[in-house]
Amino acid sequence: TQSFHLVVLGGDGIGPEVCDQSVRLLKTIQPHLDGVEFNLDPHSVGVGEYQRSGEALPQSTFDACLASDAVLLGAMGLPNVRYPNGKEIAPQLDLRERLQLYGGVRPIRLFHEDDTPLKGHGAGDVDFVLVRESTEGLFYGRDAVADLEADEATNLLRITRTASERVCRLAFETARRRDGKKKVSLIDKANVLSSMVYFRHVFDEVAKDFPDIEAEHIYVDAAALFLVRRPQDFDVLVTENMFGDILSDLAAGLVGGMGMAPSGDIGDKAAVFQPSHGSAPDIAGQSIANPIAMHLSTAMMLEWLDHPETRRAANALNTAIADVLSDPTQRTADMGGKLSTVAITDQIADRLNYH
Amino acid sequence: TQSFHLVVLGGDGIGPEVCDQSVRLLKTIQPHLDGVEFNLDPHSVGVGEYQRSGEALPQSTFDACLASDAVLLGAMGLPNVRYPNGKEIAPQLDLRERLQLYGGVRPIRLFHEDDTPLKGHGAGDVDFVLVRESTEGLFYGRDAVADLEADEATNLLRITRTASERVCRLAFETARRRDGKKKVSLIDKANVLSSMVYFRHVFDEVAKDFPDIEAEHIYVDAAALFLVRRPQDFDVLVTENMFGDILSDLAAGLVGGMGMAPSGDIGDKAAVFQPSHGSAPDIAGQSIANPIAMHLSTAMMLEWLDHPETRRAANALNTAIADVLSDPTQRTADMGGKLSTVAITDQIADRLNYH
Ligand SMILES: CC(C)[C@H](C(=O)O)[C@@H](O)C(=O)O
Ligand SMILES: CC(C)[C@H](C(=O)O)[C@@H](O)C(=O)O
Repeated sequence: TQSFHLVVLGGDGIGPEVCDQSVRLLKTIQPHLDGVEFNLDPHSVGVGEYQRSGEALPQSTFDACLASDAVLLGAMGLPNVRYPNGKEIAPQLDLRERLQLYGGVRPIRLFHEDDTPLKGHGAGDVDFVLVRESTEGLFYGRDAVADLEADEATNLLRITRTASERVCRLAFETARRRDGKKKVSLIDKANVLSSMVYFRHVFDEVAKDFPDIEAEHIYVDAAALFLVRRPQDFDVLVTENMFGDILSDLAAGLVGGMGMAPSGDIGDKAAVFQPSHGSAPDIAGQSIANPIAMHLSTAMMLEWLDHPETRRAANALNTAIADVLSDPTQRTADMGGKLSTVAITDQIADRLNYH
Repeated sequence: TQSFHLVVLGGDGIGPEVCDQSVRLLKTIQPHLDGVEFNLDPHSVGVGEYQRSGEALPQSTFDACLASDAVLLGAMGLPNVRYPNGKEIAPQLDLRERLQLYGGVRPIRLFHEDDTPLKGHGAGDVDFVLVRESTEGLFYGRDAVADLEADEATNLLRITRTASERVCRLAFETARRRDGKKKVSLIDKANVLSSMVYFRHVFDEVAKDFPDIEAEHIYVDAAALFLVRRPQDFDVLVTENMFGDILSDLAAGLVGGMGMAPSGDIGDKAAVFQPSHGSAPDIAGQSIANPIAMHLSTAMMLEWLDHPETRRAANALNTAIADVLSDPTQRTADMGGKLSTVAITDQIADRLNYH
């Protein structure tokens, strides 16, 4: 029996309640898998932990993440609790940097035409993956503190060869593995920024190792427009950290919003799977939060564990979710529906089918 | 008689042919105005000029712009002609910096439901103005040249008090003048970047001078999502240069694409009006380009000249354009129609009505 050490971080706001539901699904799934065991290991993290211990990401939690096979995370941060410098408490950024989770993998998939604000798109018409570089770019300068009395404030956008190479490689590998258009679009601003000329250069070098995958360049402004006008043309996108932050929220908006958008932050030594949404404290504790993004993130984790049995489980979970979402009456409140966090999870659990 | 000195820069690709049509409209309008004269002064600029003289923005053109009452610009740049450092020839960026055109004003308006990719939105439902800071931000570092052999490349994002103050002020004044929701949304990333904490601080200071205008803060990633899910909630947005570049293209995508998106680059000493689209060399010379963005930019210019008669002309032109666009069969090829650049301009000219 192979035991997977899965660190579970509920976090803040709706984080724990959506995370609990994914844990429940994992426990439902486990008995159906052959020779695979999930060792679920909860740890504390986030604003609650900051208020208790003064540290949003305690060393013991960090160590557990580093030693784990994968981390499942709910949501972190609360808008009204900030560090003394005014910035939000967002330990997911620390996790990304300290665990070198360089690839922010954000799949965007439309399950039902009712879920998109776009005309003329139905299930499967929007189906791409955005890979966001997550350790540098404009986020490199995030530790700087502004002097509000000064005449100016600056932040540095930094692109390194090492980080660019590994994130571009991840994008091409994703395109190769996916059953898609076999295409990677680099989203840059090489017409204006030298760091982006550099990023493009590295991308082009990596592309040579993937002759079976089409490589194209799109300026970030044009990409924002193409995403709303012809999202069906994309397969895999790779981009800088800040651009990826913006475009992945835009993309989530095309398929139902943040409650439908999973993510995996992938590194060579660790990986963290979490919904793209925030902690939504205004609706916490009411069991009305949409757990779909969390469950899709859990499926990503199962796939990423890369064992035949966990891949089988990922398929079962993805299929059950798609099955529920094919019926637009099966939705939580954010999507105009009536199901609770628990009830929609029950629907998914009922449809789990292990082939 | 008041004479307005209008510098006309056709530029590259489709620039001259769309610009010619706006000049034609100006000539049609002029005899209907009382005591106002347009002194149209064409100058050369862009890649064509770069190839001729080695300078994309000759000093004489620059001087004429500086001395003018307003500049009307077609489009500049050609993807295949670049500076030796690999970057595109984009003298609009030089114009913005050298003329200190700090406010990139980009009105976004939906004229007909057929023109938007969004469900459930009709004429007027999307109607906001994005004000993009245009002299600094991440574009501050645009002169840097990348060393492709180095281990990294960087660019500096710079926010100054002076530039932030004037662009925020312009945004609030725009909201005050508009017949809208009397709201300004600052789009920032103050949860992560100190330069954005600084920008927000300056915005909040300026907001105090406009107690009649609602001021709100939205993170740039959330803004990208809100723009696709509830664009009707926006009135005036103000943001950093790079964020504005991305979001304004996204926004243009909501109302028909770049062919429908006008812009004004506004400074204290000069102003340049141009369509947001590029030079589209692939369709140049065929009279199939969409001149609507150019004509809307011309109307912005007339409004900006701020003479009762030019304001009357702006109204006439805007109304005529809206009138043509209320009929979705009156479109150029980019919008699925059959009209030529000249024919759709004829339609507009026919509907000019001076109240
Ligand atoms: C919460 C915030 C710091 C974070 C980010 O900017 O990366 C979030 O927007 C995300 O996309 O994961
Ligand atoms: C052509 C390009 C340099 C320019 C910019 O990035 O500002 C354009 O995208 C714009 O929005 O005016």
